[in-house]
Amino acid sequence: MSGQSLPPSGSKLQIEHDGQELHVTFIKEDSGYGVFKLASGYNVRFPLADVKIIKIYDISQDHRKTMKEETNIGRGAHRISLLSTGGTISSRVDYTTGAVRPTKDLSFIREAISDLEDRINLRTEIIDSILSENMTPSHWIKISHDIKKAMESSEAVVLLHGTDTMSYTASALSFMFEKQTAPVIMTGSQRSSDRPSSDAFENIESSIRFSLENIGEVGICMHANSSDGSAILIRGVRARKMHTSRRDAFKPMGDGEIGRITDRRTFIKNIRKKTDSSIELFDQLDKRCGIFYFTPASTEEELENFSRGKKAVVIMATGLGHVAEALLKKIRDLSDSGIHIVITSQCLNGRVDLDVYASGRNLSASGAIPVEDMLPETAMVKSMYVLKKDPDNFAKLMQSDMRGEITLRSDTVEIR
Amino acid sequence: MSGQSLPPSGSKLQIEHDGQELHVTFIKEDSGYGVFKLASGYNVRFPLADVKIIKIYDISQDHRKTMKEETNIGRGAHRISLLSTGGTISSRVDYTTGAVRPTKDLSFIREAISDLEDRINLRTEIIDSILSENMTPSHWIKISHDIKKAMESSEAVVLLHGTDTMSYTASALSFMFEKQTAPVIMTGSQRSSDRPSSDAFENIESSIRFSLENIGEVGICMHANSSDGSAILIRGVRARKMHTSRRDAFKPMGDGEIGRITDRRTFIKNIRKKTDSSIELFDQLDKRCGIFYFTPASTEEELENFSRGKKAVVIMATGLGHVAEALLKKIRDLSDSGIHIVITSQCLNGRVDLDVYASGRNLSASGAIPVEDMLPETAMVKSMYVLKKDPDNFAKLMQSDMRGEITLRSDTVEIR
Repeated sequence: MSGQSLPPSGSKLQIEHDGQELHVTFIKEDSGYGVFKLASGYNVRFPLADVKIIKIYDISQDHRKTMKEETNIGRGAHRISLLSTGGTISSRVDYTTGAVRPTKDLSFIREAISDLEDRINLRTEIIDSILSENMTPSHWIKISHDIKKAMESSEAVVLLHGTDTMSYTASALSFMFEKQTAPVIMTGSQRSSDRPSSDAFENIESSIRFSLENIGEVGICMHANSSDGSAILIRGVRARKMHTSRRDAFKPMGDGEIGRITDRRTFIKNIRKKTDSSIELFDQLDKRCGIFYFTPASTEEELENFSRGKKAVVIMATGLGHVAEALLKKIRDLSDSGIHIVITSQCLNGRVDLDVYASGRNLSASGAIPVEDMLPETAMVKSMYVLKKDPDNFAKLMQSDMRGEITLRSDTVEIR
Repeated sequence: MSGQSLPPSGSKLQIEHDGQELHVTFIKEDSGYGVFKLASGYNVRFPLADVKIIKIYDISQDHRKTMKEETNIGRGAHRISLLSTGGTISSRVDYTTGAVRPTKDLSFIREAISDLEDRINLRTEIIDSILSENMTPSHWIKISHDIKKAMESSEAVVLLHGTDTMSYTASALSFMFEKQTAPVIMTGSQRSSDRPSSDAFENIESSIRFSLENIGEVGICMHANSSDGSAILIRGVRARKMHTSRRDAFKPMGDGEIGRITDRRTFIKNIRKKTDSSIELFDQLDKRCGIFYFTPASTEEELENFSRGKKAVVIMATGLGHVAEALLKKIRDLSDSGIHIVITSQCLNGRVDLDVYASGRNLSASGAIPVEDMLPETAMVKSMYVLKKDPDNFAKLMQSDMRGEITLRSDTVEIR
């Protein structure tokens, strides 16, 4: 590249190096070296003196082709609304820094659903543009209104969302929509759509396929395996992100799998069907809830400090739902003062049971509320809902199944 | 049973009911009904009037046959110490209430290891008798001294422990034993030894088998599957209880599997061997550490309250290690005030990486310390150790692998 002027970062180039022709993205110059991204997604560093540029395509030209905030795709009969809140699925790599940032560019969706254009009429709308670690209960309420509006004019709603807190939002929407006339299929991606290994395309297509089914609940659709070709639909209150980076990070906890797509064939099981009557949305949540992670270092003081200002504290206890006896008096005091103490397990799988060990019975007697096999995150979100919906019956509602968040146990009386 | 005097609770009986003879344990009388435990472990209720007692065996006679607090088993060459801290593995069902309570009865061990009596000389000692939810860092220190003493006079140490916090103790012992001359194999059980489905027998036997290998680290040995026949050995810093009740609840997170027993054949891989030099035990831990569980409802106030009085706070963040931008200023302030903020992920699997998203970079810039693929619980325990060992190099040591708690990543520079 000696004597050649350097192209802007992010430019797509055809180069020659060591006798080979390569199609690369130029990232940056670094002390006489050029850093290039290969089509595989990996970076290479070549001395600039050894590189010859054959052709330059400016990637920034591509980036300017963003969609309008509202667009229609397809000429089919099924009217589907796709709402985007942001997240990796709507992000792109910034080649100057290497970091991924949210954009308002959803143009890849056309490509993702080209096989379905004859069946659907998809209206896309960008309702927000944030990474999901910044989602708050206030966002959930705003999103619920956007979904309700979309549901009133379409057969299904697909919601794009960052994966980090997707299961929290899914739980919140599950409780807030007491009756829904259309499926709400949430999806996201672990790799942005401009990366060769992106899962965005299949996740969008699979979500649209699930949205054509008679589903009356909130589900999360993501890759079923790390490779392409199959998707899973997980009940909103039973989904959990179980890997930081894999494309099949979302797992159904307990019996949370409600659908699967393999080779473009859709299977659905144990779902709640959509209702014919009108939508019922309960749009109030009490934010004064949190998750307390019990450890052997936990003290009465730590629990008291954490509980300050809260209305409900979900404890992630050990095993069947135990905490140290040294905390029982504090739990009794907090409970007496009107703060609900909800017991879940940091094991994440299986059911809490405070009847097996003497220590569990003492915890129960201290006013703690064990919630069967409910996930800790779901329990926190449900607390927010129940505190506004029917605070006088808090314990009873927390221990009753409302949206599939508690699985019935067998009636066998077994002594362990 | 009309006209017959009722035997004491816990009595073993042969009864006749509806023409059938049954061997049962009498639990209690309840409004004219008798509650009996069948050999299968299930309870049945029969009207007492329909039950005829054929024979009575008093179970309390069995329970009186407790071992002495120190006992020797076996006539073999390998000297092994078995120390019991309590937990389900040393508990029994109290048939009056149905609850499980710790005992000092380890007599089942003789039966568990009868196949190994020619090879080993096992000295058992009860060093405590508590359920593990009551373990504290002070217990860990006391246990480390007991282990050191046992290690000085034997080839291996097997440690019985409740399952609830076993992985925390395993992490603590892993860091505290900087050099160890013998394996420390921890085990427990999900069902007490007096239950038909108990996993105690196989877990003890497998632990003894692992303890005969050249292992110089702390491992957890439990059932590899829900059925009998295979055991897994998990590196202490990479184990996690992932189910509240299953016998194969303990899972190796990442590459934590260091051994397996199938059909009584022992396989070992990637282990650290024991050292020939003397034992090095570092027996100081700073208790002022805790785990903060970030959720979309988390506020600056919640984080500040939780952090009060702490020296290190391990945040279980979302995805690759993100928290809401709204918390960044507070993290900066806490960090500036000398409280270490350590970043792990609630996904539990995979690696945190604050370089992928712009938000992660901002978190990093706020002084937060991401710790690769270290488990949150391990990170908390390691914080306790590092704060006493070398507080001036806290961040550097937390980000360096010491006992296999961090797995090396590939050197490929990849832009996601």
